[in-house]
This record gives sequence, structure tokens and C-alpha cells, in this order.
Amino acid sequence: MQVCRTINEIREFTDRARTVRKTVGLVPTMGYFHEGHLNLMREAKKICDCVVVSLYVNPLQFGPREDLAEYPRDFERDCALAESVGVDAIFAPDDDEMYPAGYNSYVEVSGITDKLCGLSRPGHFRGVTTVVTKLFNIVRPDQAFFGQKDAQQAMVIEKMVRDLNMNLEIITLPIVREADGLAMSSRNVYLSEEQRRAAPVLYRSLCAFKAAVDSGERDVAKLRRGIEEMILSAPGAQIDYIEILSVPDLETVNTLTGKCIAALAVRFGKTRLIDNMVVEV
Amino acid sequence: MQVCRTINEIREFTDRARTVRKTVGLVPTMGYFHEGHLNLMREAKKICDCVVVSLYVNPLQFGPREDLAEYPRDFERDCALAESVGVDAIFAPDDDEMYPAGYNSYVEVSGITDKLCGLSRPGHFRGVTTVVTKLFNIVRPDQAFFGQKDAQQAMVIEKMVRDLNMNLEIITLPIVREADGLAMSSRNVYLSEEQRRAAPVLYRSLCAFKAAVDSGERDVAKLRRGIEEMILSAPGAQIDYIEILSVPDLETVNTLTGKCIAALAVRFGKTRLIDNMVVEV
Repeated sequence: MQVCRTINEIREFTDRARTVRKTVGLVPTMGYFHEGHLNLMREAKKICDCVVVSLYVNPLQFGPREDLAEYPRDFERDCALAESVGVDAIFAPDDDEMYPAGYNSYVEVSGITDKLCGLSRPGHFRGVTTVVTKLFNIVRPDQAFFGQKDAQQAMVIEKMVRDLNMNLEIITLPIVREADGLAMSSRNVYLSEEQRRAAPVLYRSLCAFKAAVDSGERDVAKLRRGIEEMILSAPGAQIDYIEILSVPDLETVNTLTGKCIAALAVRFGKTRLIDNMVVEV
Repeated sequence: MQVCRTINEIREFTDRARTVRKTVGLVPTMGYFHEGHLNLMREAKKICDCVVVSLYVNPLQFGPREDLAEYPRDFERDCALAESVGVDAIFAPDDDEMYPAGYNSYVEVSGITDKLCGLSRPGHFRGVTTVVTKLFNIVRPDQAFFGQKDAQQAMVIEKMVRDLNMNLEIITLPIVREADGLAMSSRNVYLSEEQRRAAPVLYRSLCAFKAAVDSGERDVAKLRRGIEEMILSAPGAQIDYIEILSVPDLETVNTLTGKCIAALAVRFGKTRLIDNMVVEV
């Protein structure tokens, strides 16, 4: 596995792959890999001849009061894990390489970024779409792989690719969970023992939501209240948002119909966790 | 010469060219061709195996009180002219093809778009960078060709390409002028006979500016006043802006140093003309 620190290095690497007609897959990450990341890499290896994993904690998608400085990092361990699942190259640039002095160009998707995490993290998705555009232009993948845990991110990127006529396919893979249902996240390491014990309530509340939908409940206010009550019963849980919206436009709905997503962000102490469940009726 | 109305058609055309290892050049235009456009196409033919001209009056770069509806069009004549200089394909989509219902993604360059035309035409450059990004992704050219008449546009696009790591080279070609010095522009057809007689004052004022610089004048306020006085002496000329700024950052300068641009926008009646001159000391 090759480790590339500069844009030129990774470009040369993928250019060589394309010259011998290999397809290229990209898994954009911020590192500190868990089973969710490794699942994306394994799937990428099944579909693409050559898999590039980008590992870059993108400052542009963090707000001024967010956890950029404390974001967990373990580069050696990440490289070993990526290599163990057959990744061909890691692209791990520094900030000067990605945003040199005078940097001033941005990609923005309006509309669906005004909801959910876009509302509680202003500027977050502009940071995501900008860095992802750069990574797509640098690596030029045939497919790029994202996780359904960041459901809104995946929808925003799919919309950007469609609107701006980008030449690749976005593949979104299901959430990978711990045995007790907690969605895997690099941020789970922030949780105290007590918070960790409480956190699976997010998934339980989403399963109860799905069960209610399956038994015929269509009243969105009532379904939302069900999730809320269950989460508030957990010690230390502070709700950032709980929303039930249409997919893929993320419009408000009063009566559940078609494809919808229940999405939530909940804080345990300083740690903000997200989870979601898509249902179709 | 092939005329493509859809994104799929032009993609197939350029994919075929790339398959046989032809290089692809793109000349983005809004049509109503003059010698300036034809010069871009001829230069593109010298450098690239296959030249695509996009012909699209992009509504996103026009303000609500601007001349979108009246922008001059003559598709048959444009096709004949493009074919006469060896263009391989015209890409002429309609608005639904470029901005389908629900369209919501934008590319923006900050900083250098706050000056000159960016100030007098808010949102203009966001429209330009968005449509140009789409055209680059659709056509995937090796080189794209722009005219120095829209000097700020060329700088904004070069900055966008560099910042977002786009995979192509931007080539900017000198202004093509009428015999009396008026910069060629599709908007020149709007001018009355009297306005047309007055309009070459723009170029004369820029030549006087250059002559003053050549004879050692470095006081930017004085140089600017020289341009202003000459233009105001012409009947019907209303100044939108006259600026002398550094290149390529478009910063304000008090004393002329290094590479600078004198850029101006002047109205004759409803018609807004632009011109510029780059000097290096």
C-alpha cells in the first residue's frame, strides 16, 4: 500500500492505474477507522480494481466551537487497518496541501443543507462539498463510497454530483453498528462508560419508530414524540434535533408517505452522536 | 461538425474522441460570434485534436435587471462560422438540460469576485463559475479557452481551477479589436451609430494610460483620473467603474508596481461595455 502526502503523488498513482485500464474507487474519510470505514473499503475493493482511501480531517467542515483540535487520530493504526483490507493507496495531505494561502473557492448545495446537521452545524456541508469536490478532482474515481450513517451528507453529495455533472458514481452503504446497536463512529471514543451504556437508546428509538410505522402509524408528530420520549428517558441525553423528513428532498411531512427518514442528533455531555433510519410505506 | 443539444450527446462525442487518444479543447461561449470568438476557436484547433464550442446564454450569470432576454442570438450563423474555422462539435443545451427542476448546486470564488464586475453585477461570477464547472465536467477538456476582454472572468476561472484541483489548463487569449480599437463584443450591436462612434474612447483612454505608465507615471490616482477625464469627454459615456488593481489578486494599489490591470466598465445608454489593459513595471 502506497502512502501519498501530496496531490502530485496521488495523481501519479491513479494516473498509472488508469493507464493500465484499472478502475479507481475512492473512500473519503477523516481517519480513526472503525468497522464502518473498513466495510466501505472492502466493498470498494469488490467493485474497483484500485482503491484509494483519503484520510484528511477537513478543517473547513468544522465550526469554530467544534471538535477539530480534539478529533481522534491514529495514523499508524489506520494505515495498518487499510492495508489489511487490501487498500491500494492512502492519500493523507496536510492543510497547506489542501488549502494553500489565498485559498478561496467553494462548492455549495442549497436547500437540503438547511435542515438537520446543516441547521445545527452552519457551514458544515459547504466544507464537505468543497473538500469532496477537490478529492474527486484529485483522485478522479469511477466510484466513491459513503456511509449511510451520515445520511444527509450522502444525499448532499449525490445532489452535487447530479447538479454539477460530475463523472462518477456515488455508492452509499448501510450503517455498521456495535452489537448493542450503537452506530459506529470515530466520536464514540469520547463517551464515558456511563454515556456509552446510555447511547444505544438512539438505535432503540429508531427501531421503535420503524415498528410503529410497520404497525400502521402514519402521524409524523406522534412518531416523532415516540422517539423523543424514549431518548429523553436515557440518562444524560440532550436532543439536538429529531426530524422525520421526505427522502431525498428532506421536506417536512405531516403524514408519513413514500420514502422518509427519521434522523436525529443527540448530545451526551460534549459528544454529539447522529443516527437515522429510512422507512418506505 | 456535430450539433449536440443534450449532455449525453456531447459526452458520447468527447468520449469517442478520447478513446482514440484525441485531446479535447473547449471554447465556452454565449454565442453571437465575432472575431474574438473565432480567434479562440482557431487557437484551440492549433492546440487540440478535437474542439468543442459550447453555446449557451447562461441565465445564472445575469442579474434580474440585465439583458438576458435581449441578449443577441443567431444560431444558424454561429454554426456556419464555427464550422468555417474547423470546430468539431457545438454543444447548445437548453435551460432544462443545464438547470433541471430542483437544481441547487453552486461554485463560488470569493475575494477577487468582490471587485470590478463582481461589485456592479452581484451574483454574476457565481453564475459563471457554476456553469463553467458544469461544462468542464460534461466535456472534460484538456484545455479551455477564454478571452482577455473578460479579464476578471479569466482570473476567477484560473483561481477556481487551481483551488478546486480541476484537471485542465486554462488558456487566455488577447483582446481582439475593431479597426478603431473598440474591443469586440456581442453587445456592440446594441450601440446606436452615435454611441458606436464614441465607444473607441475606452481603448484610447487605456492606450493613454499605458503611455503614461511607459513614461514613468506611477501615481495610481493620477493615472485613474487620466482615464476618467478622457472617457467623460466622450458624448453619452457613463462610468460604471474604472479601477487600477494588482494582478492576479485584484488588490488596491496606490503606487503602480509589478503587474497591474486598468479595467473599466462604461455605459452608453443601456449598453454596458468593458475593456482593460494589463501593464507590468
